[in-house]
Amino acid sequence: MKIARTPTRFAGIAALLLAPAASASLPPPPTAVGLALQGPDPAWSITEDLTTEIGPRMAGTDAEAAARRWAVQRLQSMGFVNVREERFDMPVWVRGAEEAWLTGPFQPQKLAIAALGNSASTGAKGLDGDIAYFTSFDALVAAPDTDVKGRIVFIDNQMEPTQDGSGYGYYGRGRFTGPNVAARKGAAAIVIRSIGTDDHRNPHTGVTTFDAGVKPIPAGAISNPDADQLVRQWKRAQQVKPNAVTASYDPAPLRMKLVLTPQDLGTKHSGNVIAEVPGSDPAASPVIIACHLDSWDLGTGAIDDAAGCGIVTAAAKHVMSAGQPRRTIRILWAGAEEVGVFGGKAYFDAHGKEKHAVALESDFGADRVWRVDFKLPDSAKALGDRIAAAVAPFGVTRGKQPANGGADVGALIAAGVPAVDLAQDGTRYFDLHHTPDDTLDKIDPVQLRQNVTVWTATLAILANSTDSELP
Amino acid sequence: MKIARTPTRFAGIAALLLAPAASASLPPPPTAVGLALQGPDPAWSITEDLTTEIGPRMAGTDAEAAARRWAVQRLQSMGFVNVREERFDMPVWVRGAEEAWLTGPFQPQKLAIAALGNSASTGAKGLDGDIAYFTSFDALVAAPDTDVKGRIVFIDNQMEPTQDGSGYGYYGRGRFTGPNVAARKGAAAIVIRSIGTDDHRNPHTGVTTFDAGVKPIPAGAISNPDADQLVRQWKRAQQVKPNAVTASYDPAPLRMKLVLTPQDLGTKHSGNVIAEVPGSDPAASPVIIACHLDSWDLGTGAIDDAAGCGIVTAAAKHVMSAGQPRRTIRILWAGAEEVGVFGGKAYFDAHGKEKHAVALESDFGADRVWRVDFKLPDSAKALGDRIAAAVAPFGVTRGKQPANGGADVGALIAAGVPAVDLAQDGTRYFDLHHTPDDTLDKIDPVQLRQNVTVWTATLAILANSTDSELP
Repeated sequence: MKIARTPTRFAGIAALLLAPAASASLPPPPTAVGLALQGPDPAWSITEDLTTEIGPRMAGTDAEAAARRWAVQRLQSMGFVNVREERFDMPVWVRGAEEAWLTGPFQPQKLAIAALGNSASTGAKGLDGDIAYFTSFDALVAAPDTDVKGRIVFIDNQMEPTQDGSGYGYYGRGRFTGPNVAARKGAAAIVIRSIGTDDHRNPHTGVTTFDAGVKPIPAGAISNPDADQLVRQWKRAQQVKPNAVTASYDPAPLRMKLVLTPQDLGTKHSGNVIAEVPGSDPAASPVIIACHLDSWDLGTGAIDDAAGCGIVTAAAKHVMSAGQPRRTIRILWAGAEEVGVFGGKAYFDAHGKEKHAVALESDFGADRVWRVDFKLPDSAKALGDRIAAAVAPFGVTRGKQPANGGADVGALIAAGVPAVDLAQDGTRYFDLHHTPDDTLDKIDPVQLRQNVTVWTATLAILANSTDSELP
Repeated sequence: MKIARTPTRFAGIAALLLAPAASASLPPPPTAVGLALQGPDPAWSITEDLTTEIGPRMAGTDAEAAARRWAVQRLQSMGFVNVREERFDMPVWVRGAEEAWLTGPFQPQKLAIAALGNSASTGAKGLDGDIAYFTSFDALVAAPDTDVKGRIVFIDNQMEPTQDGSGYGYYGRGRFTGPNVAARKGAAAIVIRSIGTDDHRNPHTGVTTFDAGVKPIPAGAISNPDADQLVRQWKRAQQVKPNAVTASYDPAPLRMKLVLTPQDLGTKHSGNVIAEVPGSDPAASPVIIACHLDSWDLGTGAIDDAAGCGIVTAAAKHVMSAGQPRRTIRILWAGAEEVGVFGGKAYFDAHGKEKHAVALESDFGADRVWRVDFKLPDSAKALGDRIAAAVAPFGVTRGKQPANGGADVGALIAAGVPAVDLAQDGTRYFDLHHTPDDTLDKIDPVQLRQNVTVWTATLAILANSTDSELP
């Protein structure tokens, strides 16, 4: 509905760049960047069409399969070649009923909850328990088993926004491994404060992992306002006040009822969708640009990661339209990223021994690129300088840390493939991440186009780099 | 979690007023306004405690009864007198399961939906139907029955924010009477775009009314992002594109599955909670200040209307603490406002023949008061001027339109009781109104205190007005 606000400063830069060149002679043929700055934006149409016609596309489900069919049609219709699906097998987990209540000592109240991926089921009747409160993941790790055993663990672990998303790794531990720690200590279940920075009643889902030999327990995330309410009640339950409407005025445990009925469906198939812009030099190694096609099931996966697929694909299209590049550009729309990077692993298993010149991924929303980071061989120093100079006019500064790529190209980069990161502004990314609110209206078309422009400028240079610069 | 931002300009005013007086002599005894500006704010503690310990309190339910018990205790503990509950009977409707899906011609997608108060049930198995799309309530009214019969009506009726909330009456018709119109025309059900201005996946509930003799139909509201998605699919369904993953490429109806299982529980009791500050002149008519204690069930009713009860009660407390007023101040925490102003009607039935000096209500959130409006007898011209002058330092300007009071004192005002409106900034009110997001974290303590200060300044003048000024 409402469009996210374009930062005034960036809107100014865009307006400047969109202004017609002050030349009286015949215009030169359009450059790739010129195409990115003008006319319809394929990134927008990919994002709008995928989120509208397919919507949520959970890994291994019929919806993800429909998304792959849609993707193959779309990539073929855009003029890419070697468009294909590469299937792989993976374990599939799907959400069931999910409800939770704070049941005492105060008036019962319902909470907004979502199960975490790989959560166990409580069974349809649910379970009741006392809350074992922990301020943080570290506090849970430090707790004796007796504080946890048979109880419903709650981790109150509040993440604040950062531009580079740097809090996710730290706070995210509450979700990534909090359930495993709680299960090891004998908890009946675990509920965490959402790993998110918004204040809406929309919980943030995401995958969790139990170690081999650890029996999974029911695991869910409640929204930030619900976590606030739980914390207020927990403090009051320890010191019940005379005006509380309760049967007794003594301190009392805070109680919760939890119903989560997800299911493991066993092994199913997912797949990667791959397309190429063929390079003029068949001996040159390809540039690989990635995104992921699957999404969580609560929203329509607009920022995570339809927009990423739109951005990388629009950039490839503009480079292709401006003239054949020297290197092949390989576009990877990975399957099953959210639930364990199964598509990235499958790509590496199939193609990891092929030479790749450089790997890039877009998987951090649709807000503007603000920084470029590199992990390039020494031979590519001038190449990095050319890219940094090419993106600077669009408000992108050069970072000082090494590029780390993205999940779906992570195995390639770990194996030594060079990487470039076009880092997006993540200030509001974790407001929306893995929530029902990840929908098309959250995408700002002006910032989306800035992404495409920066990607196009970068990709045009990389795809025409020499064999002395990149492997 | 996050605190709503205080407007910089108002924060400045508050800082100015909170500064100590530049006097070297002994300080004067505190005025009511002085008490409002300093120390703990009873409006905050009422709002926090009610929303935390009781939470949602739907009219006629056990939760609303618990809220009344809580209210009586709280008002007594604050030192008010004649604290009592006045019961009344009312018809009770409660929410059941609520789910909806867009089922074709595209990949099925789930929608965020809430039943409207007085909605009929679809039965547990739900119903399937074709969407009959209308841009507005007026378009539905104008449509022939044949466009509606047997279908699921959708009203796409987008409200935008205004400071005075003036769009609610116009756009609200889609909810207030849209279902009645659709039922008369033979619709199977109706789904509306939420009457709300946010872009979150939280539907806005609210009451709807069917005329006597009209058989209620299932009626729900979907969130704005879901309505956007429905509209995009509806446009595409009329012109299905070759890359859509559908069985056919022909135009197709847009289909929906709807499960809503609310129940009418018959007649139950609700009640008003009343408390007083006794005036020094027992012959003088009282000032009545109102709010409502019940809330919708999706959120905790923080802005609607725990904050209103906090504001009016804090003002009465400060006036009482600064010295006994001439007139009695009667505080009305009305029951069952949301579902049909049953508390306001019950108050009028019981007390409508008593003389009241003036009536005021706070029921439009917790953001700052920006305008004061009057509906006073000619004898009270100077009184109005005194109030306008007293609130101006807090950023409140005088309006040119007559005060209209509030729902719970509406019958009194219609019967001729004078009124003063302390109009709150409604710019973000309809982002939250009747949604799961109506929670404590949305309240800005600085703006809440400005409300209390403005109310205290106004109430101190009204409660000490002469018999020649007010009836």
